[in-house]
Amino acid sequence: MISTIEWKDDKVLMLDQSRLPLEVVYVECSDYHKVAEGIKKLWIRGAPAIGIAAAMGIALGAQDIKAGSMEEFLKKLDIVMDDLLATRPTAVNIKWAVERIKTLLASKKGEQVSAVKRLLIEEAKRVLEEDIEINKAIGKWGAEFIRDGDTILTHCNAGSLATGGYGTATAPMLVAKEQGKRIQVIADETRPVLQGARLTAWELMQSGIPVTLITDNTAGALMKKGAIDLAIVGTDRTTRNGDVANKIGTYTVAVLCREHNIPFYVAAPLSSIDFEMESGEHIPIEQRHADEVTIVRGQRIAPEGVNVINLAFDVTPAKYVTSFFTERGAFKPRDIKKLAEKNVAIESIRLHVAK
Amino acid sequence: MISTIEWKDDKVLMLDQSRLPLEVVYVECSDYHKVAEGIKKLWIRGAPAIGIAAAMGIALGAQDIKAGSMEEFLKKLDIVMDDLLATRPTAVNIKWAVERIKTLLASKKGEQVSAVKRLLIEEAKRVLEEDIEINKAIGKWGAEFIRDGDTILTHCNAGSLATGGYGTATAPMLVAKEQGKRIQVIADETRPVLQGARLTAWELMQSGIPVTLITDNTAGALMKKGAIDLAIVGTDRTTRNGDVANKIGTYTVAVLCREHNIPFYVAAPLSSIDFEMESGEHIPIEQRHADEVTIVRGQRIAPEGVNVINLAFDVTPAKYVTSFFTERGAFKPRDIKKLAEKNVAIESIRLHVAK
Repeated sequence: MISTIEWKDDKVLMLDQSRLPLEVVYVECSDYHKVAEGIKKLWIRGAPAIGIAAAMGIALGAQDIKAGSMEEFLKKLDIVMDDLLATRPTAVNIKWAVERIKTLLASKKGEQVSAVKRLLIEEAKRVLEEDIEINKAIGKWGAEFIRDGDTILTHCNAGSLATGGYGTATAPMLVAKEQGKRIQVIADETRPVLQGARLTAWELMQSGIPVTLITDNTAGALMKKGAIDLAIVGTDRTTRNGDVANKIGTYTVAVLCREHNIPFYVAAPLSSIDFEMESGEHIPIEQRHADEVTIVRGQRIAPEGVNVINLAFDVTPAKYVTSFFTERGAFKPRDIKKLAEKNVAIESIRLHVAK
Repeated sequence: MISTIEWKDDKVLMLDQSRLPLEVVYVECSDYHKVAEGIKKLWIRGAPAIGIAAAMGIALGAQDIKAGSMEEFLKKLDIVMDDLLATRPTAVNIKWAVERIKTLLASKKGEQVSAVKRLLIEEAKRVLEEDIEINKAIGKWGAEFIRDGDTILTHCNAGSLATGGYGTATAPMLVAKEQGKRIQVIADETRPVLQGARLTAWELMQSGIPVTLITDNTAGALMKKGAIDLAIVGTDRTTRNGDVANKIGTYTVAVLCREHNIPFYVAAPLSSIDFEMESGEHIPIEQRHADEVTIVRGQRIAPEGVNVINLAFDVTPAKYVTSFFTERGAFKPRDIKKLAEKNVAIESIRLHVAK
């Protein structure tokens, strides 16, 4: 398994994803400023991975604090957390990590500073371990839907690199492989930022899963030839009704799957499900800079001054989703909202493949 | 109108499209070897444009031949034609141009060499003019289906640059503009070779038609928002039953159009219709080199050694095509085969927009 980020010898080791796939470089962060730099400069990306980086950054920052009292310590730690929050203001997982740590700290006010410093390291490691456990569970439930010999299409990168390990969309693939199923993956290159070409293709090659790279234009022709058995994608945010916001082009994959009667699965940790939001119509879609489209690795590919629409995400309506893979099981889109209920009879809504 | 190729002062002027959109350079070809080089190095591309280049190359080569007799002249001209045929062996339009010239020559055996040399220049100019006339006619019929205010999606480049002028898919846009309709165009960038970004966006900007560039992944999201009114694409080969071979990704556009009830039109000069071939299943699909996908303008974007599927074309089944725009009118896919009949009552199958 590829390590995206880890705590090692009181430092944070972070894979610099901005150099992939041309160079594999781990950056050793010996203070939290380096971790913040990594988040800012996209050495690390993917919501869960950023959350882990934030927790580790806080733990690292805590070690260097000189404080005579817990009060002073907490005051100085607030600066660390604010600095990390400022790296990517829209990344909800940084906020999530900060809140988790603050809740922990609130219950430890009577402890020694040195003990709390150690606790923060343990907590950061736990955030990483929990993420991997969640992904393994997604993988276990999802792998049920993968048969020996299947060819799986994926879009963008919802892989190990976006998480602490295993990934979300890739977890069922990795578990299927561990189960001895012979699978192969078709990776959409995913314009404009090419996460499929740069990251997914690379990490699947590292994992020993046969992977074939295609342009986003090619998936339809392969489906028509019967060369794709199922699709698994990740999600940035899924709403209560099962609508899926994910990288631009996901909606097109979903429409193509429906046209060819190919199952379209979404790997969605519960943390990515927004139970408060009724449907995908309410999700704001970020418009990103034209340069992402007109310039590829420093090379201009379009006329100067051309008008560009560069949507970061699209929303796939629930009706296109065959089922969701979560850490609690596989579910139909209509049952997603039930996962927010306290006393849901989970086995009554969980999907299984008939043997 | 952009000039792709023209005969000027006994030379051939050819726009070097391989440098677009960064540089606009016209190459002056003063002998036929330069024309052959231009075809080989893709300074000129697009089936009709290549046919025109071949006819002009033959005329240019003829001027330099020193021959005491018509027999000697024809023998030396055969070398010119063979050289041009060898530039791109699969380009049917070079063959078409050579055969057209040979038919002409067969009827002129009694003429003086000097007179035949002049005739060949006239014929080459006529090939260009006829192509423009065909495209204008496609534009006239197609423009009926464009309303004031429409936003038109196109894929790849079936524009002026691929023809003698006006283009095929772009002709209805240009005619609609001449008719005073306010239209705008959304151009798919068209990975892997980016003809949409490099050529279509550029030539529409030159023509004063508002154009917006998108990644191929974005069309679906725009259709869902209701931002696209119709799609017009070109075709490399259309079969008797109305199946359409065109640049990879065209099929995806067609499926998306159907899903959103958006008309999907194909601009197809009769020369692109293969009345001998029953259906698209028989069209061989070229697999091109992996480097087209993994390297963009000299920059590697994917891991070394990754497996790639790079299909040059896909086939859109006739059922997805709303109608064809040809130089004889607009027609339903099921009526395409009737165009091969000698005595077809054309007005009985021609489509018109109800006023």
